Amino acid sequence: MRITIAQLNYKVGDFEGNRDLICKTIDRAKAEGSDLVIFSELCITGYPPLDLLDRVDFVEKCNQTVEEIAGHCEGISAIVGSPTFNTGSEGKKLYNSALLISEGKVIFKTNKALLPTYDIFDEYRYFEPEQHFSVTEFMGVRIALTICEDLWDEQPFDNKFEKSRLYTISPMDELAKQNPDLIINISASPFSFRKVEAKKMIFISKAVKHKIPVITCNQCGANTELIFDGASLVINQNGEIYNQLDYFGESIFTFSLEDLISGTILHKEKRHDPVYLIHEALITGIRDYFYKSGFKKCILGLSGGIDSAVVVCLAREALGDENVLALLLPSRYSSEHSITDSVRLARNIGINYEIISIEKPFSAFEEALAPSFKGRKPDITEENIQARIRAVLLMAFSNKFGYILLNTSNKSEAAVGYGTLYGDMAGGLSVIGDVYKTDVYRLAEYINREKEIIPVNILRKAPSAELRPGQYDTDSLPEYPVLDSILYQYIELQKPAREITVEGQDQELIQRVLNMINRNEYKRYQAPPVLRISSKSFGDGRKMPVVAKY
Amino acid sequence: MRITIAQLNYKVGDFEGNRDLICKTIDRAKAEGSDLVIFSELCITGYPPLDLLDRVDFVEKCNQTVEEIAGHCEGISAIVGSPTFNTGSEGKKLYNSALLISEGKVIFKTNKALLPTYDIFDEYRYFEPEQHFSVTEFMGVRIALTICEDLWDEQPFDNKFEKSRLYTISPMDELAKQNPDLIINISASPFSFRKVEAKKMIFISKAVKHKIPVITCNQCGANTELIFDGASLVINQNGEIYNQLDYFGESIFTFSLEDLISGTILHKEKRHDPVYLIHEALITGIRDYFYKSGFKKCILGLSGGIDSAVVVCLAREALGDENVLALLLPSRYSSEHSITDSVRLARNIGINYEIISIEKPFSAFEEALAPSFKGRKPDITEENIQARIRAVLLMAFSNKFGYILLNTSNKSEAAVGYGTLYGDMAGGLSVIGDVYKTDVYRLAEYINREKEIIPVNILRKAPSAELRPGQYDTDSLPEYPVLDSILYQYIELQKPAREITVEGQDQELIQRVLNMINRNEYKRYQAPPVLRISSKSFGDGRKMPVVAKY
Repeated sequence: MRITIAQLNYKVGDFEGNRDLICKTIDRAKAEGSDLVIFSELCITGYPPLDLLDRVDFVEKCNQTVEEIAGHCEGISAIVGSPTFNTGSEGKKLYNSALLISEGKVIFKTNKALLPTYDIFDEYRYFEPEQHFSVTEFMGVRIALTICEDLWDEQPFDNKFEKSRLYTISPMDELAKQNPDLIINISASPFSFRKVEAKKMIFISKAVKHKIPVITCNQCGANTELIFDGASLVINQNGEIYNQLDYFGESIFTFSLEDLISGTILHKEKRHDPVYLIHEALITGIRDYFYKSGFKKCILGLSGGIDSAVVVCLAREALGDENVLALLLPSRYSSEHSITDSVRLARNIGINYEIISIEKPFSAFEEALAPSFKGRKPDITEENIQARIRAVLLMAFSNKFGYILLNTSNKSEAAVGYGTLYGDMAGGLSVIGDVYKTDVYRLAEYINREKEIIPVNILRKAPSAELRPGQYDTDSLPEYPVLDSILYQYIELQKPAREITVEGQDQELIQRVLNMINRNEYKRYQAPPVLRISSKSFGDGRKMPVVAKY
Repeated sequence: MRITIAQLNYKVGDFEGNRDLICKTIDRAKAEGSDLVIFSELCITGYPPLDLLDRVDFVEKCNQTVEEIAGHCEGISAIVGSPTFNTGSEGKKLYNSALLISEGKVIFKTNKALLPTYDIFDEYRYFEPEQHFSVTEFMGVRIALTICEDLWDEQPFDNKFEKSRLYTISPMDELAKQNPDLIINISASPFSFRKVEAKKMIFISKAVKHKIPVITCNQCGANTELIFDGASLVINQNGEIYNQLDYFGESIFTFSLEDLISGTILHKEKRHDPVYLIHEALITGIRDYFYKSGFKKCILGLSGGIDSAVVVCLAREALGDENVLALLLPSRYSSEHSITDSVRLARNIGINYEIISIEKPFSAFEEALAPSFKGRKPDITEENIQARIRAVLLMAFSNKFGYILLNTSNKSEAAVGYGTLYGDMAGGLSVIGDVYKTDVYRLAEYINREKEIIPVNILRKAPSAELRPGQYDTDSLPEYPVLDSILYQYIELQKPAREITVEGQDQELIQRVLNMINRNEYKRYQAPPVLRISSKSFGDGRKMPVVAKY
């Protein structure tokens, strides 16, 4: 039997586009002599469809699209993922289904049993969990067809408080009773840079435990904040990786089951440096955000600091130099190097830039507010006004010319609230909002790996918002390596305060940082979508009360 | 047996505050000769604790607080709601529990079986559902102790696509097999103005079906966007309402079970006009947002339109006239009446106001942008700049003096994207973001029920953003009664486009409105928390993809 893995990039709700992509791939697989082509979880809708699943017409379109694809399966079979109606009288209205289709018909259907409902996942919001399991036979091969989390009945969590057995059933243990020859797993599993090897191990352990091959097909590309890493796996019955498909990009791979079982190893397992993966992930995230929303051009403010420098380089990679415009928006407090460094960077990467002083709008605001602020000293108010004037100017370009504003805040800043709401927190997409400052430096070094693209002066200068004379981030924050260590332990590992330690730092500093995090939920509530690269990013995966005692 | 219902207002995460409130109420109930005092679901944490439940130290504090309260239960017993650890090796880490405590000890524990995971609810994110049911005997009375949704196994949804039997088990049917004498239901059930009677019917139908009394205890007050209506019920074995506690506010009621069973009716069922309930709900929402976040003073822009007029009246009711500051921010396009009407309103309600022209900042921006915008005509860009200048000024007051900015956008505008991101969409809290424009008018009439508080000219003038000469909302939107009818059918009822009808309107207009809704998900993603009064508000209860084909 010849099998094709179709690792593709779907757009949420684009039934025609997704159908055409699937049908084209069926044609190609057929041309390659394939018997069965495997598509990813909910490929009909693109993942995640979210509350579009609450609309009956949306699900009807899914059914219709499956039928159209089924009509296209002549002389070849396919596995597709789609929501299907729960026709019973009780329970959630839908199932998250895998459908085996052949010669115009659905010949086998199975539903997802383990519905991830944590972090960015909320599948129990829509789907009834399956409780019955059956292996299907296809061309004499007994297939255990599973959907993503169905194989994740045992999983390691960053938060030690979670149970490693999150579910009370193991679909694969149930299916194993029916003596399958092969496990197929279709998924839509988002990227998390520290989970790459752990994910492989989930699948390898199932191959080893059941002594049969495991074939996975993951979605790739990005939908709003979620980036899907692809990296689909073919693992033999000994738990060895026969092949691994590309990270992030589309990839179609046809092979014979006999070759897989024979013990051949193609030695195509991918192992990459985390910084490389983050870099590629973010480029994928930017590209698909623009491409899928029908925009081409981005704008951003270049401050002379490292965050905007890294974002502009990523944007140039994703969208092309002709589609990136940088605004340099100096104030009376801007250093000379903030302009010279930014100009050098813009020239290095060949993008257009404009320089607009914020002095006159700033003076106009000072004047307008003078009667009301009489007798009050300048404070954070005036700093915020500058940041907000920059947002007004950037958004004016966005409105006038159709640019999308890229936000350049990093995760460390977002965590402690070091940013101005409606100012530097503005933007359609936060590119590095899930990247800690210390990793932003790593990205900058990676960008400069062959030659100096980001001027070294930008890498070396002490971080400053330049909103008042002589201001540095360390005036109000600890050094970034210390800060990031505290943040990681609190946000990703979810350690209680008492267990968070940083060498040489006392509990008081740690508590001060945690207070900053918790006090700023209200700001993050209004932040743009953040490209997610970690196991716990700000946004939908971290739902904290705005009003609460922390 | 004498029973006390303690309908109280908890703050999320405020263990000391919640404990003190509970203990004080236990004392009072004891003084009233009560045997059993009933508190609401998750009263220990306040509802909804959201991802604070992912923190082990948070749950440890819950345990500790329950112990402290148990130590306080001398000569009286209490039912409290708290998360508890799932000590089994499998499943979610927590249960949503009801604990019967007496003389320093937990003497009975039951866990929630039906975990609402739809709209604003996400309980399966944290909790393992209970699958075993037992009635407990207390002072010779066999009690079926249930938690909120446990009695909602059959429920009417606005979305006809949902199943009326959302769950595959009925906890009360299970408990009924053990011959209970009484149903107690502790809840944290948020307000939805069209659900008031349906909620009563849920409980009445259980009393009638099982022929035993039902006693409910709901949370009251607000936590961020959710407003809890209280309105706890005591229903006798015939399904008659013996008593109903107040809407929104704290209320403590002690009665004898014998009196309830005897067939006495206190005739205290509350029936209110929806506009009254919305009015009270929004005041509760504002008050608790401020009180619970430690702020007192609000600021808002008064435009001379009805939205800001209604919001300022609600804010004055909630916070007191001394705590409300209005800014009047005229531009070159503002009508004279926008100022005169706003001044009259501010004087009518006795609040301070300041008038600041946005002309100079606006000219400064025009000048700064002139070189880049050369040869381009004024368009929506310049309109947005004006809205954003106003936000900069309002936020400057917020930063300088500690005001929280109230957002004044209504649900109709938010739905179709008729608002400027970082402009009039700014604010810490959206007061009427879940109120359609036609209901804003109803609120205004209610506010003016006794005398003219909102000048009639504000009620009568055609809605206009006044961002260019002669601009009216109806230039780009249908009349509000038509718009709101479409929005309600699409958002609350979730009807497919083909089923949406408005008398005298064609499908093309309806489709144009739906496109406006879907095209503006990116704006709503960054909107402030919205006080929820409907069954489907914008915010966490409506999770739509930003990037998608609609």
